[in-house]
Amino acid sequence: MKSIVGAEHASAADSVRGLHGQDQSSHAQVLPDVVVWPASTAEVSAIVKHANAHKIAITGWGAGSSLEGNSIPLKGGIVINFGRMNQILKVYEKDFQVTVQAGIFYKDMNAQLAKTGLFFAPDPGANASIGGMVANNAAGTRTVKYGATRDNVLALEVVLANGDVIRTGCRSKKQSAGYDLTHMIIGSEGTLGLVTEATLNLEPIPEYYSAAVASFPTTEDAAEAVFGIIGSGLDPAALEILDAESVRYMNMRHTDLPEKPTLLMEFHAAMEESLNAEMTLVEDICNDLGATRFEVGVGRDERNRLWEGRHSLGEILFSVYPDSTYLITDVSVPISQFPALAAYTNQLFTELDLNGALFGHAGDGSLHTVNFAPKDDLAKQAVLQDFNDRVVKRAIELDGTSTGEHGVGIGKKKYMVFEHGEGGVDAMRQLKHLFDPNNIFNPGKVVDF
Amino acid sequence: MKSIVGAEHASAADSVRGLHGQDQSSHAQVLPDVVVWPASTAEVSAIVKHANAHKIAITGWGAGSSLEGNSIPLKGGIVINFGRMNQILKVYEKDFQVTVQAGIFYKDMNAQLAKTGLFFAPDPGANASIGGMVANNAAGTRTVKYGATRDNVLALEVVLANGDVIRTGCRSKKQSAGYDLTHMIIGSEGTLGLVTEATLNLEPIPEYYSAAVASFPTTEDAAEAVFGIIGSGLDPAALEILDAESVRYMNMRHTDLPEKPTLLMEFHAAMEESLNAEMTLVEDICNDLGATRFEVGVGRDERNRLWEGRHSLGEILFSVYPDSTYLITDVSVPISQFPALAAYTNQLFTELDLNGALFGHAGDGSLHTVNFAPKDDLAKQAVLQDFNDRVVKRAIELDGTSTGEHGVGIGKKKYMVFEHGEGGVDAMRQLKHLFDPNNIFNPGKVVDF
Repeated sequence: MKSIVGAEHASAADSVRGLHGQDQSSHAQVLPDVVVWPASTAEVSAIVKHANAHKIAITGWGAGSSLEGNSIPLKGGIVINFGRMNQILKVYEKDFQVTVQAGIFYKDMNAQLAKTGLFFAPDPGANASIGGMVANNAAGTRTVKYGATRDNVLALEVVLANGDVIRTGCRSKKQSAGYDLTHMIIGSEGTLGLVTEATLNLEPIPEYYSAAVASFPTTEDAAEAVFGIIGSGLDPAALEILDAESVRYMNMRHTDLPEKPTLLMEFHAAMEESLNAEMTLVEDICNDLGATRFEVGVGRDERNRLWEGRHSLGEILFSVYPDSTYLITDVSVPISQFPALAAYTNQLFTELDLNGALFGHAGDGSLHTVNFAPKDDLAKQAVLQDFNDRVVKRAIELDGTSTGEHGVGIGKKKYMVFEHGEGGVDAMRQLKHLFDPNNIFNPGKVVDF
Repeated sequence: MKSIVGAEHASAADSVRGLHGQDQSSHAQVLPDVVVWPASTAEVSAIVKHANAHKIAITGWGAGSSLEGNSIPLKGGIVINFGRMNQILKVYEKDFQVTVQAGIFYKDMNAQLAKTGLFFAPDPGANASIGGMVANNAAGTRTVKYGATRDNVLALEVVLANGDVIRTGCRSKKQSAGYDLTHMIIGSEGTLGLVTEATLNLEPIPEYYSAAVASFPTTEDAAEAVFGIIGSGLDPAALEILDAESVRYMNMRHTDLPEKPTLLMEFHAAMEESLNAEMTLVEDICNDLGATRFEVGVGRDERNRLWEGRHSLGEILFSVYPDSTYLITDVSVPISQFPALAAYTNQLFTELDLNGALFGHAGDGSLHTVNFAPKDDLAKQAVLQDFNDRVVKRAIELDGTSTGEHGVGIGKKKYMVFEHGEGGVDAMRQLKHLFDPNNIFNPGKVVDF
């Protein structure tokens, strides 16, 4: 490794291995044998060639912010940290596009892009790397309007298992020239190839925006309002649900909201008149569906505080339960089924005596929960697993998915046959064998080899 | 075949074979040996199993409206006509979704959906089948706002080469559960599997719309205005360019427009005020960029006449040159490069003494031309091929693609290595071998076996 990347860019120190053995989930740490920091696609290719010849596992590493063990090097081997490949290569301002190296963090990228008036819209909350976002098809609060990562990638540079470098897609919005290798790679979690560059679609920073907060008597009422808003044809840029517990946690640090089930919304528009008309309609819908409080047109500071609170929710929860293990669910359903899913999950909270939080990017049917169990309480941990199984099963029965945005990683593999059938999983397994015959790329993830 | 689909649903009659041997392109007719009309996925599966065991070619057939020979059965064998599998299986009105059989024609589907206030937005002009649109990743006039077929498919049912039936995706907008088999199949032109069902995203029929027509001194001026409109952040639902020749042909039957390079636009909005504000901005941009005439707010009849004219353009052209062979180009580039592409194409018209028409879905960088050559004039036909080669080469140099929406079919295969590199095409070829080891599915298309 040192001969490829230089002695100072490879390390087998325990501290380094430790930092690259765990993501933000509570899946168990597994240490890699070595961590390398390549500086170029050519170096990545050389590392992969070597690993493939010797059948050594390779796991890509961006920010380590994944939530389903996606970047944990289950079979040890090499972790490629893309931290030195973190440059914006070219901004295509007139086309609302940018080409970047995989290691750039998306918040850093958006900060650098701000002067162009453009931004990359998918927003996973954590400061993920673009390579990681592509690998996991990350999404977040703004996906309801702007789509997931999948919807905002035009072209990729990918290192294949034999070290060959291919370019998929192009900068044209319309593309019908052969098999869609770009979308085959997006969401494959580093198991089919390593993304080294990505060309992304950007959006103009909106001229006008407005945030609104609505409180409801029950989580089910709030969920019904989500469906009412989306069903009316409104186009929110964010539509988040928070149960009373979630609001209570947010209030610990950032906000001062009534501790009630809450919708947190944002709308973007090119013209102020449209925005005001939209907000009036949103208020009517919320009030019709039982909102006990509706606050609209909050200013920039208040808006930033709200989003800071929302994005810190995980962190606050973890600090409240420092010595606990936790389980994060990440299911997603068609929007008409969201109230049923929220009601079922809430009912399980009671039935299983769980004290966690329910929240999610409700506008596109995405629901999260976080629940905690003491590290030595195996019975409680089993309850959490049972809870996850039941929520996933219900989501799939409601025509949804076991994972809307965190990816399969380690934790969702067991649901893949239930979700896709034997035939679908078999097709995926064959793809894995085709593109990675020696099972070097992030082995143990997505499907069994 | 008769034992699978019933005696009356299989035919080897010459007239039937003739009708299934050619699409709307001028690629040479090739006859299948037999045409079958299955009634169910189970029958399709049985046909495929038989064909795979005996290594017989199978080509799917929807409306026969493809434009690059995509549905011509190059190796004879079996053509599966999906005409009997043409039902809407379920409308999910609350989720803006529909599940249909592959053989339904999209105009028929939209007519049936009209009572729900929803429509499938990708609009290829011709009355294509949904299966064909999925196979070719079809797009059209409304793609600039609503995306291509690729962007509007949530789930598929697919028959694989061994006859197995898999379901890909689900009805959730957000999906990150494993490899994206849905997008691997979309645009694969029936070469990896046969789509039997599709779950599609629908859009609400807009409350307010406005059409506008602007004339410009030169095609290059009109192309600059396209870039001006898109670059301003406006969100047209259609933005078509027509050169003076195209307008002249349209005027033969439907319209009475000045015979000048023209932009044909449509805007959709949920509120009348937004629409009016948008139209004012569009007019300003067009006037700033040299429009000699701008007509906005045309009524429903006039709007329908304009679109009828636009959609009939191909048909009118073919009727003017009844005994000619023709060549349709279908390139697409990033929007900033559209003026350069239009200028280059226009210059080739002069240089090569071509008298065809230039038009296209300019709003997403898509450019078409149609040119004619007498059937016995081989020299002129060679000029058309040379013209196509040069336009494609230029589009790819401008970071675009050889095909934005018609697909690879027969005519674009020769450009695939230039567009994707040896490595990219090799990855596609391996996918083909994996999913269709006996090369039964639409052999000879997309990539060589």
